[in-house]
Amino acid sequence: MLLNYDIIFGRHAVEELLKSKKPISKVFVHNKLSGPFEIEIRSICKEKNIPLVRTEIENLNKLCSGKNHQGIIAATSPIEFQDLNDIIPFIYENDQAPLLVILDHVKDVRNFGAIARSAEVFGAHALIIPRKNSAAINNDAVKTSSGALLHIPVCRVSNLKETIQDLQSHGIQVFSSSLYSSKDISEMDFKGPTAIVLGAEGKGVQKELVDASDDSFKISQYGKTDSLNVSVSGGIMLYEIIRQRM
Amino acid sequence: MLLNYDIIFGRHAVEELLKSKKPISKVFVHNKLSGPFEIEIRSICKEKNIPLVRTEIENLNKLCSGKNHQGIIAATSPIEFQDLNDIIPFIYENDQAPLLVILDHVKDVRNFGAIARSAEVFGAHALIIPRKNSAAINNDAVKTSSGALLHIPVCRVSNLKETIQDLQSHGIQVFSSSLYSSKDISEMDFKGPTAIVLGAEGKGVQKELVDASDDSFKISQYGKTDSLNVSVSGGIMLYEIIRQRM
Repeated sequence: MLLNYDIIFGRHAVEELLKSKKPISKVFVHNKLSGPFEIEIRSICKEKNIPLVRTEIENLNKLCSGKNHQGIIAATSPIEFQDLNDIIPFIYENDQAPLLVILDHVKDVRNFGAIARSAEVFGAHALIIPRKNSAAINNDAVKTSSGALLHIPVCRVSNLKETIQDLQSHGIQVFSSSLYSSKDISEMDFKGPTAIVLGAEGKGVQKELVDASDDSFKISQYGKTDSLNVSVSGGIMLYEIIRQRM
Repeated sequence: MLLNYDIIFGRHAVEELLKSKKPISKVFVHNKLSGPFEIEIRSICKEKNIPLVRTEIENLNKLCSGKNHQGIIAATSPIEFQDLNDIIPFIYENDQAPLLVILDHVKDVRNFGAIARSAEVFGAHALIIPRKNSAAINNDAVKTSSGALLHIPVCRVSNLKETIQDLQSHGIQVFSSSLYSSKDISEMDFKGPTAIVLGAEGKGVQKELVDASDDSFKISQYGKTDSLNVSVSGGIMLYEIIRQRM
């Protein structure tokens, strides 16, 4: 979990980093850190939607190769994060039908990168990920995405359910993929403003997000194997949306 | 290249293995091996479409953890290989339209496994791979396929161009995916007996195979990133075929 990040460590350095506009992937703090400094860090992370991870001192030592981290390390991010509220008006101003991809608990870096790649290739406007329980945004993710993560905006949000409601208030229909849906993807109408929600392999999209969505669908499957890989299903969904729109 | 195989080594053991019906992934021989034994091994491998790899003594030593391999090691295969000539009549006898997936130079084990998974999920009848220049059929491939490789038949052939011609003589239309095609996948008609050819990432399907095919198509793409991951494109092609057939 701690590998393949570029890091900044030490109380003062991380505090300055957090106050700057530099993109930050995660902040790791010693799980015994408390007091005013901890409160300040927690507050900035919350405000900026930066994941704050409490961890053992051994993990911090390992991440820092034994240097004096003072109980706090920040992993910088190879990509900038963008604000969804800036992106949506921009899409409408350009007379386009929004196409957004929401990732619920997709924690595997390779799957995350592969979905980003497909989303960029098919012209999706942004990826939306939750602050917690998402894949690491590190150099591996950028590599697996074949560089797509440097082109497609990524928005980090604190609560996916509220984000879905917010999108709906902007006239965007939200569709969740769900193995339990009775409808096939080809029955959906993706021509209007659309967001799709993809869930983690095995678990799928959380029920409360399926319930908050306008509709749900499945990709009909015929074999003996569990189900499609999530990056493959993501690619198929994006293909079907573009096919309908063309 | 030599990892994650179950192996058998030594002249007599490998010879007996080759004469048995046990599935074999690859045979590695010392690149200085010659004489009647080498001729016999080469002949059996050719007849059974088993890849024969000539390699340095150091590689054999490493693969065998220093045991006395006598210049020859066989990697057993976790899956059985099947004969395409047995499969095609069986599909027609069951009143189905054949759906076959040909992999040209797909050497990445994870991509191979992911394509196998999608092929099985969408009910394809078999995967066809060349004897040379294909991904390792090892435990990693089975794992990445989520077990699908244990359900879908895999046929190993010595010459893909001849295989394409052979499929055509059985009334099967062969479609190659090619980034250079002027036609979009949605313009193809996949309702009849169909085989699709997928190429390696970056290179695509070899020109001589595209030329031997009945038609070629691309998946239209709109982003700045190179192209889709091959396992994602494979999934999309299979989805489109099944969508048309339903």
